[in-house]
Order: sequence, then structure tokens, then C-alpha cells
Amino acid sequence: MPKISSKGTAMPHSPIRKLVPYAEKAVANGKKIYHLNIGQPDIETPKIALDAVKNHGLNTVAYSHSGGNQSLREKLALYYAKHNIHVDYEDIIVTTGGSEALIFTMGSITDPGDEIIVPEPFYANYYSFSTQSTVTVVPVISTIDDDFSLPPIAEFEKHITHKTKAILICNPGNPTGYLYTKEELKQLTDLALKYDIFLISDEVYREFVYDSGSKHYSILEEESLKEHAIVVDSVSKRYSMCGARIGCMVSKNKRVMETAMKFAQARLSPPSFAQIASEAALDVEETYYEEVVAEYKLRRDTLINGLKKIPNIKVSIPKGAFYCMVELPIENSEKFAQWMLEEFSDQGETVMVAPAAGFYSSLNAGKNQIRIAYVLNTKDLKRATEILALALEAYLKR
Amino acid sequence: MPKISSKGTAMPHSPIRKLVPYAEKAVANGKKIYHLNIGQPDIETPKIALDAVKNHGLNTVAYSHSGGNQSLREKLALYYAKHNIHVDYEDIIVTTGGSEALIFTMGSITDPGDEIIVPEPFYANYYSFSTQSTVTVVPVISTIDDDFSLPPIAEFEKHITHKTKAILICNPGNPTGYLYTKEELKQLTDLALKYDIFLISDEVYREFVYDSGSKHYSILEEESLKEHAIVVDSVSKRYSMCGARIGCMVSKNKRVMETAMKFAQARLSPPSFAQIASEAALDVEETYYEEVVAEYKLRRDTLINGLKKIPNIKVSIPKGAFYCMVELPIENSEKFAQWMLEEFSDQGETVMVAPAAGFYSSLNAGKNQIRIAYVLNTKDLKRATEILALALEAYLKR
Repeated sequence: MPKISSKGTAMPHSPIRKLVPYAEKAVANGKKIYHLNIGQPDIETPKIALDAVKNHGLNTVAYSHSGGNQSLREKLALYYAKHNIHVDYEDIIVTTGGSEALIFTMGSITDPGDEIIVPEPFYANYYSFSTQSTVTVVPVISTIDDDFSLPPIAEFEKHITHKTKAILICNPGNPTGYLYTKEELKQLTDLALKYDIFLISDEVYREFVYDSGSKHYSILEEESLKEHAIVVDSVSKRYSMCGARIGCMVSKNKRVMETAMKFAQARLSPPSFAQIASEAALDVEETYYEEVVAEYKLRRDTLINGLKKIPNIKVSIPKGAFYCMVELPIENSEKFAQWMLEEFSDQGETVMVAPAAGFYSSLNAGKNQIRIAYVLNTKDLKRATEILALALEAYLKR
Repeated sequence: MPKISSKGTAMPHSPIRKLVPYAEKAVANGKKIYHLNIGQPDIETPKIALDAVKNHGLNTVAYSHSGGNQSLREKLALYYAKHNIHVDYEDIIVTTGGSEALIFTMGSITDPGDEIIVPEPFYANYYSFSTQSTVTVVPVISTIDDDFSLPPIAEFEKHITHKTKAILICNPGNPTGYLYTKEELKQLTDLALKYDIFLISDEVYREFVYDSGSKHYSILEEESLKEHAIVVDSVSKRYSMCGARIGCMVSKNKRVMETAMKFAQARLSPPSFAQIASEAALDVEETYYEEVVAEYKLRRDTLINGLKKIPNIKVSIPKGAFYCMVELPIENSEKFAQWMLEEFSDQGETVMVAPAAGFYSSLNAGKNQIRIAYVLNTKDLKRATEILALALEAYLKR
């Protein structure tokens, strides 16, 4: 039989999705599952976006420009201007989700064997995309004890070699919920400039910031990073339209964008209907964001209040995004997550969580942690937290 | 300034799109251009598909299954059954265009430095995707003198090394229009089995076969290739919905599909609205294909009749797809194509063609050839051929 590639073998299974068969079995057996495991918001997509697709006037669904429709790119530039990010539409390539923006970025700046430094825990698919590009993720560990703030910059510097092409951050963070301060970003900026490497920032949760006084800063606001900053973005979370598959790659570095455009041309164009939806979504009123963020803040607070009642766990208070990392008084959170699906229920209900080990690349790191996505309404979230508490109690008593 | 990757630098510019700035300038100067350069059909997308999107009932545009909606995969399996291809829905992964099916295929079976043998000339983006995967395309040249039929199998065998992971064909061919015979496919089958390598077939033009008596054969019909055959497919051409970005990867090799699914999970899911359109399109009546194929046959015949009147050119008669390779009595077809845009016009009109060198990876091959996509209506096609004849005459007289 012909052989699978080494990279194909090395590609990780999604840490979020590998429990799915157990969940399917639980559902088949009549259990109700509260899904705390996946970042699929239940919030409705703005009507203006859904309607734009309903009213599409296409007769032939033709290829668009490989960089995306110019009208969409121009609107994105206006959107960024509101966030103090001043870019031209040509500094933007529309991609098929933030995923493709990451793939184009890695393709444009790394060759096989190159390294990218990433604060850990990190979005699991960074590891998938780097494996796909045969690039090595070099983790710098951040800890739950200080809510996963930026590790000492010396830790990054220690890992910089001639193979290091970039530092990649997620801000606000998935899975940490951490929001980098202006000072932390300044430290990363100085480091990127000192070693002349790229700073990549995944800012798909830009709007999801909850505490008064805290503010999201983009690396694109930093003038000195003009040639070094690459932002990965997406409409998936912002407008609750994960399935549309529209994201973008933004950089003022012309050579990076010219190179990324060659990757974009190879795959021809981003999806047409989704571009229509995204362009319309950019017209939502400011109150949309305010309402959505207020709802997520309520959910975060509900979750945290619920978790505070569970003894012997450690909770990292998320400042943004919609994830929360929790350390449990157990050895292996994957076994616990599976056990909750297979063997536990309270009044016929259970919860599904994401074991956190998949968000670490260091061996054995995060094995006693879970990631909770607070994408359910507060009533369900309350109940889910209650079930989690009961499950943990029962698990420890086995 | 931080550096671009070697692979990013090596990524080719699209041979079809690099003349675009000259075309834009021509249009700005008031010239009308007949586009023979790109495979964007003018045929309307089936109304049933456009309407399905208009009537979408989504409130939250959520991630779909990473392999695509099960209902779509099941319908695709039924579609294939009609073409004597018997696969289960789990043998199909829905991808973002045929492009992504190629990327998943290469990722699943090749590592950096591996080789894929491809009859040349070939679809230019095969070269892009292999560059992206740092895989080497090993060309086996086919010639215009026998309409680009399969080169002697000994030529393939000569190039097989321990690095060879697959042979990749396009059937019917872009840019050649060649339709492989059952005997030719048998030869490739035997070779793939002998050396235990994969046979990848890009069959996105399956329906576009014009001559009575000629028939498309899929490599998936060959039972002995169960573990070796991978088909790349797309709805783009079949339903004239290139912009939707829905394709699929089909194989009965379970390990290949399990591996490809990990690549699919990393990018989360294919686009939702486009899946709705594609599922509906699969319900078009058989008469849709008949009418479309009849129209393309007419276009092919119109084009060939027009080209026959041009002296000193060589025309490969296409049996399928909607491309035609033409050899011109000139040295450099890229210069000629640029000249037609910049310096030539007849009654304010000119044509744009694709220089064929971009479809070859052998140095200097195909430099006197062009690819014509016959995606215009017959009236425009007649006129475009007339302009091409006048332009060539003028170019030779310069």
C-alpha cells in the first residue's frame, strides 16, 4: 500500500474534536450535552449579513479577485481605521477564514525547518498549520498563576536562533482569554525589531474585551513595526459567522503581501457568497458590538461565579475572547472529559470540555487543565457549571 | 527588513493573471477585450443553486463538519454512482474548491523534497501547490503533434525514483483538452501498482466531453486502484459556479482520507453558503448537462473552424474541457499576448490569451504556444478568432 507522508502522520488530531465519537454515543443514548468545548457561538449572525446573501443578484457565481472583492477590502480598511489601524485596501488580502491567512503567512515567511516562537498554551491549529508547513513551533510557556500574561521577554530571546522567522501571538488569546497590555506589545515590538523577525498577531477576537479600562491594541498601530507586523483576522467570531469562511491577512510590508498574493492566486479566490455576507456585516451598527460584548461579559461573569464555587480548582480570569482555562485537581483532563461523556450524567445531562493538553506543544504540559468556551446563554452556562462541579466531585470520589 | 521565504519567492505568478495590468490599461484606454485567457465560464449557474442560497434558512452561520455537510457528501456519492464510481460518503471530503483538494492530497502523501510526476503541459497551479508543499514536479512532456495524448509509459517509468510519491493527471486536461482513453488509464494503473505509488486524477471537467463515441473514465472505476487512486473534483466548472469554492477529494484509501481529514479539521470547515448551493446544484436535471455540453461543443467547433483559417499555426483539437492549445509561428507568446493588449486593436477591440509557458515546468518549453479558453458565446468567439488572426498577421509583419 502506498505510504502516507510523515507530515500527514504528524498532523495532530483536533483536541476539540477527538472526543466527538464519545459525545455522539452519549447523545444516541439519550444524554443531553452542554457544549463548553468549541468556540461556535450561539449568537445570531447579523440580519443585514444574512439578508444580503438572500438578496444576492448573482447569475453566474464567478471567481472574484484572488485578493477578495475590492469593495470588501475597501470596507475592511475603513473598519480598521475605526480601530486606529491605518491601512490601504492593498494591504489586505481576503482569505478563506483566518485559517488561510495563517497558511499564507507561514508560506510567505517560512521554509521547512524554520521556527516560529509562540507563547503557550496556544490555539491548537497553530501547531497544525506549522506541521503542514514543516515549520517548528517553539513554545514559551505562560502560566495560569498570572492568567497567562506575557512570559518574561528574556524567555523569548533565549529561543531565538537563525531559524526563527517570527513570533506569533493571539490577542485576545484563545485558549487563554488573556489581553496583552500596551507595554507587553512594546516588549515584543522591540524584540522583533532587534532580531529583524516578523511579529504575527491573531486578532480575531479584537472586539471581545470585557473590563472597563482595558483596551485592545493591535500591532498594526505600532508605526515602527511597518515591515514586521502581520495581522491575521476573521469575521467568524466578530459577526458570529464561523461557517462563512472569510478572514484576512493584513500587513504594510509590500513584499510580504506580494508573496501572499501568489499563494492567493494559486487557490483562485475566496468564497463569493461569504464575501457578500461579510461586506454587509461590516455595516452593522456599533450597538451590535456593544450588545454582543455585553452578553459575553455577562456569560464570562456567570461562568466565573459558577467556577468559584468549585473547590480546589484554579481559574484564569479571561479579559477577552470567550475562553477560560481551568486547572483541575486531577491528573488527566482528557480522561475526565471522556468520562463525563461516557459515564457521568446528572438528570440525564452532562458537559463536554476541551482537554487543554492539545493547546500545549511542551510534553505533558496542561494535562490537568481544560478549556471552557463560554458560548452558551447564561442559563445553560449556569447549569453546565453546576454539572461540571458535580462531575468533578463524583470523579474524585471514584 | 525581515526576509521572505525561499518557497514564497519560488511561488510562480499566475500565467493567466500576470498580463492583467496590461489588460486594465487597455480597458482604461477604451479598448474592448475578448477574454480567451481564463477558464471563467459565462454560462449561468443553475437557478436551483442560486435560489437555494436565496432561500437559506440560517440564523447563525455555524461551522459545518470539517469534511462537509453529510447531506452534501451523501448526494455527491449518489452523483458519482451515476458515473460508475461507487464510493461511500466517508470516502469524500468536501473542500474549498478543487484547489484545497489538491493541497490536502499533497499534504497527505508528500514530504518536502518528494516528487510527483505530471504529464506536461499541466494546470499551472499544480506547480504552485507543489511549490507550497516544497515538492518537486517532475514533468513528462506530451506534444501538440498528437494532441497531447499520454506520453509513452516508459517515459514515466524512467523518472520514478524512491522520492516519487504519485503521478498526477488532469482528465479531461486543462490546458490540453485531451481525454485519456481507457487503455492509457490502464497503462497508468499498471505503473502505479508496479511501483506502489498514488495515481491522482483531477476530473473537474468530467462532463465536458464532446465527441460521440468518446467517454470519460475515472480512475475510481478501476477496482485494482482501490488503495492508490485519489480523485480531485470541483463543482466550479460543472455548474459554472467557480466563485462558490466547493470541491472534493475522493479516495477509497482509508488512511489517506483519515490523514486528509486532519488537514480539513485544521482549517475547520468548507464555506456554508457554497455548500447549500452545491447540494442544490446536484439536483439539476440531466438536460442541464446536455445543454451545457452541446453549447461547449458548438463553441469548440466554432473556435476550431476559426483557427483553421489562420495560416502557419498548429492546433490541438480538444476532446474535452474547454481549453485549446495553439502553436504560433512566433518565438515568444508572452510578448505577443502583451503586444495584443498594448499595441494592437481592430476597430477598438483586441483579445487576451494565456501564454502557454506557464503550463510547462521544462525550461523554454511551450514558449511559442498559447492556451485559449473557449468560454465565450459563439458570436464573440468568432470575432475573437478573427481578431487573433489579424493580430498575428500584423505581429509577423512588424
